[in-house]
Amino acid sequence: MDFIDFDKTAAFKNLSILLAGRGKGLDLRSLLDAGRVENCQTPMAAGLRYCWAAKAVDKEILEALAALAEEQELIAKFRALLEGEIINTGENRKVLHHLLRSQDGKTLTGRQVNFDGRDIGAFYQAELARFSAFARKVHGGEIRGSTGRSFSHVVQIGIGGSDLGPRALYIALENWAQKEGRQKLKAKFISNVDPDDASQVIDSLPLGETLFILVSKSGTTQETLSNELFVKAKLQRAALDPSKHLAAVTSETSPLAHNPAYLDSFYIDDFIGGRYSSSSAVGGLILSLAFGPEVFAEFLAGAREADRAALEPDIMKNAALLDALTGVWERNFLGFPSTAVLPYSQALSRFPAHLQQLDMESNGKRVNREGKPLAYATGPVVFGEPGTNGQHSFYQLLHQGTDLVPLQFIGFTESQRKDDVEVEGSFSQTKLLANLAAQIVAFAQGQRPGQRPGPKPGQGPDRDSADCSKEFPGGRPSSLIYGKRLDPAALGGLLAHFENKVMFQGFIWNLNSFDQEGVQLGKVLAKKVLSAKAKGQGSGDPVLDAYSRLLGV
Amino acid sequence: MDFIDFDKTAAFKNLSILLAGRGKGLDLRSLLDAGRVENCQTPMAAGLRYCWAAKAVDKEILEALAALAEEQELIAKFRALLEGEIINTGENRKVLHHLLRSQDGKTLTGRQVNFDGRDIGAFYQAELARFSAFARKVHGGEIRGSTGRSFSHVVQIGIGGSDLGPRALYIALENWAQKEGRQKLKAKFISNVDPDDASQVIDSLPLGETLFILVSKSGTTQETLSNELFVKAKLQRAALDPSKHLAAVTSETSPLAHNPAYLDSFYIDDFIGGRYSSSSAVGGLILSLAFGPEVFAEFLAGAREADRAALEPDIMKNAALLDALTGVWERNFLGFPSTAVLPYSQALSRFPAHLQQLDMESNGKRVNREGKPLAYATGPVVFGEPGTNGQHSFYQLLHQGTDLVPLQFIGFTESQRKDDVEVEGSFSQTKLLANLAAQIVAFAQGQRPGQRPGPKPGQGPDRDSADCSKEFPGGRPSSLIYGKRLDPAALGGLLAHFENKVMFQGFIWNLNSFDQEGVQLGKVLAKKVLSAKAKGQGSGDPVLDAYSRLLGV
Repeated sequence: MDFIDFDKTAAFKNLSILLAGRGKGLDLRSLLDAGRVENCQTPMAAGLRYCWAAKAVDKEILEALAALAEEQELIAKFRALLEGEIINTGENRKVLHHLLRSQDGKTLTGRQVNFDGRDIGAFYQAELARFSAFARKVHGGEIRGSTGRSFSHVVQIGIGGSDLGPRALYIALENWAQKEGRQKLKAKFISNVDPDDASQVIDSLPLGETLFILVSKSGTTQETLSNELFVKAKLQRAALDPSKHLAAVTSETSPLAHNPAYLDSFYIDDFIGGRYSSSSAVGGLILSLAFGPEVFAEFLAGAREADRAALEPDIMKNAALLDALTGVWERNFLGFPSTAVLPYSQALSRFPAHLQQLDMESNGKRVNREGKPLAYATGPVVFGEPGTNGQHSFYQLLHQGTDLVPLQFIGFTESQRKDDVEVEGSFSQTKLLANLAAQIVAFAQGQRPGQRPGPKPGQGPDRDSADCSKEFPGGRPSSLIYGKRLDPAALGGLLAHFENKVMFQGFIWNLNSFDQEGVQLGKVLAKKVLSAKAKGQGSGDPVLDAYSRLLGV
Repeated sequence: MDFIDFDKTAAFKNLSILLAGRGKGLDLRSLLDAGRVENCQTPMAAGLRYCWAAKAVDKEILEALAALAEEQELIAKFRALLEGEIINTGENRKVLHHLLRSQDGKTLTGRQVNFDGRDIGAFYQAELARFSAFARKVHGGEIRGSTGRSFSHVVQIGIGGSDLGPRALYIALENWAQKEGRQKLKAKFISNVDPDDASQVIDSLPLGETLFILVSKSGTTQETLSNELFVKAKLQRAALDPSKHLAAVTSETSPLAHNPAYLDSFYIDDFIGGRYSSSSAVGGLILSLAFGPEVFAEFLAGAREADRAALEPDIMKNAALLDALTGVWERNFLGFPSTAVLPYSQALSRFPAHLQQLDMESNGKRVNREGKPLAYATGPVVFGEPGTNGQHSFYQLLHQGTDLVPLQFIGFTESQRKDDVEVEGSFSQTKLLANLAAQIVAFAQGQRPGQRPGPKPGQGPDRDSADCSKEFPGGRPSSLIYGKRLDPAALGGLLAHFENKVMFQGFIWNLNSFDQEGVQLGKVLAKKVLSAKAKGQGSGDPVLDAYSRLLGV
């Protein structure tokens, strides 16, 4: 297995030649037709489907991308990652979040993963069983707060990977759970070191009925530890015993581990990166408390199915791989610097923020796996908001701006709450989906002034004299992930799809997608400011001190 | 006053020459020093300050940008806009959101604005007085719901400009209002046509104590009208009289106007664009109900002060103008395609989403004011999340990605709730601000491996042999808006700053920043799908029908 830079591959050269021969790539306006919508689909996990009809790729480009997948050994690298090879070389770590979704403690390829004499899969299974049992005891009233009342609320204290994923997943399932009678506890989240965050959340809680989960893998995260003490002080002021209201999720080597200050502690290890930790106790404890361990098990099953689908070598049958490859075509050859995630589902309101972290923290890197600077673009800027809201906002730029932004649409046939109203002959859910279909077509086909949608290039009035403000150039590529309803399995499938897509892109670009050196310098400088201030002196960096003075630090 | 394309100006040519002579612009790493932090500041409204020390501009570039401001007659165009010239030529409309912030119904330049024999400023003043009085009556219990109980909750039903701005402003002031004892009603928002949105919000309300505000300028917004009927059906099912629970904000020519179905209706006109409507009844009614008309008046005063500051011709004394000009330098000459808004204030959690709309919908255009295609880049992609959260997420790409993203930081010395905890010698608010200072410096100065922050270019180990994964290239430009505390006046000043910045950039690029033709095609196609479906037939567009079938429409 060779790790080589993307621009050193034969596939890179072939793709460059392909692009050169086609000018700016294919014309999506003439490419997209109904047959393509029906045929350009790849099944995903949990009944989801990936429709890439509105991606500007044809047989020749796809063959060149398939050759890239083979040359960069993407499936072999995924298998190596699954089986415990040290893929996170910078930190000398395995990358094992897929193993969290195993049912039998073995990898999807049937192997056992050992480290330091321990069966890691068995360890993950044991922790899953432990936090599932803990959640059941909370639900059954065996574990109660210090007033003796049952817990009605759970609050996660964490930041970054300990916040965005679990928060997005909780919001994604809350309506579904309410409709299905599966909600057991209400969940909230404290994240920012801004004291207004913790203060406001705590103020909204019945403290005596609230269980807090402290989440920090290292046990040293500044924001999280500050917020823990914030919460503890509030509990004490309310004459509540913090040790009866706090559980922890951390690593076994952290200062929080095996600590009687918590009701219980649940463990992950160094092989679970923060942004990949939703499938561990980091996401699992709060989701199991909120909705029950069975719901979390359904989520894991959906993710597992997506992982299995990602092992398929044929790019036409592997949605994560195809998504990764077309994304690289758009990023490195068509030159698009950002991508938008547009879920037509209010439940996915925070899902784009999680994907933003997942993608930008994993692949926002300028050096290869050996730390050598790269000469090609890597991870794009990722952003998004739910439709139809975005249609009334930033879609203007997406339709008529000077830059092209590839789009990832997501939609579901049914709503989660199935509480709807019929207005002018259609339900809101139907309107939502009609808008989704309309947007894909509008972006792809565009419209010349005075024409019906779907013109062929070269048509339309003379550009020198016409008012083109009502012209839609079209040619905006998108893909669509769609399914019946957003339930736990579909959500697991969706999450794992994007995790695997990002992983494949990292392999193509020859990055270490599993470290995050870029967050370190800011941390070091912030500590420098704080420790200098504690000593009543300057930090030694005059610029840092000048900014600190402005801000009244 | 001439409206000419940016690339036809002498300033464009001069800036291009300036760039060519400098390669990739200035080296921020050597440019930034403590003196610059102290000196490169411009006062803003409401005690805020704009610090642009970490922008890669020097005297020569600033002079060329000042010449651009003069050549494109930015201040003259702003004055013309203020005084009612038809700046929104595509829709043949005046652009009068600044007049909403007038105290005497006259423009900042002392003029009266008339249209069709009406004094528009007086009309806006009268509506402000009417909705202020309405809010007072709700607070005083003179206006009650159909059960006779006082209102405790207010819910805005609107989308796009009728949602994002008001929602961001409400969230921005909620903690401040609670601390200051100014909160009168709790506010919520229904926006998306996804029925799960309305259903969930309604489910969380004491319906008998809830006042709904229907907001649609045209009175024909599909999402908003559907959600109104959703709400009405729920009220009726709860045996409540909808006409005692609904107020409207619309234009006088809309079907909602002068309608006994509402407790009262408040009016805006065609001269207030959706994304600029927060200063009208669109934002004013809900903010006045939630916090009192006095709070909204303070907000308007802050915005008015920012508008006045934006009339200053000296670019060194006009923060909005300077911000606009440096943004154009970064966009058109340094070639940065996106920009991130990073408020170190949890209260501003939705402010980036509003700015995303404001900027991308205003300047995401590829044609000039006459509808002619442009050969240069216009509005960038705008995205952002609050710090310190973002530090643990997408900042990796910002620090070490292959593309540069200019940054807009925002911070306040004091928290809103003033409820804080001291951990390891510092309060959370201090940690928040120490992180903010640290990030600006880390982005600007970077760090070579094994070195202290702040190296000069060319230093550091040999790039061919070294592991550069811990290297921070630096040279990432940012600006900082800072103030004492986020209160209504500061919030008004902040909002108007960005509105005016976007306006100036639109003038530079010779765009119509006040229409939004790019949202039309999708609307038309969605209606086509729905009306075809109602008739049980195809839409006539086979691709649209194919996508509709996938989604079960």
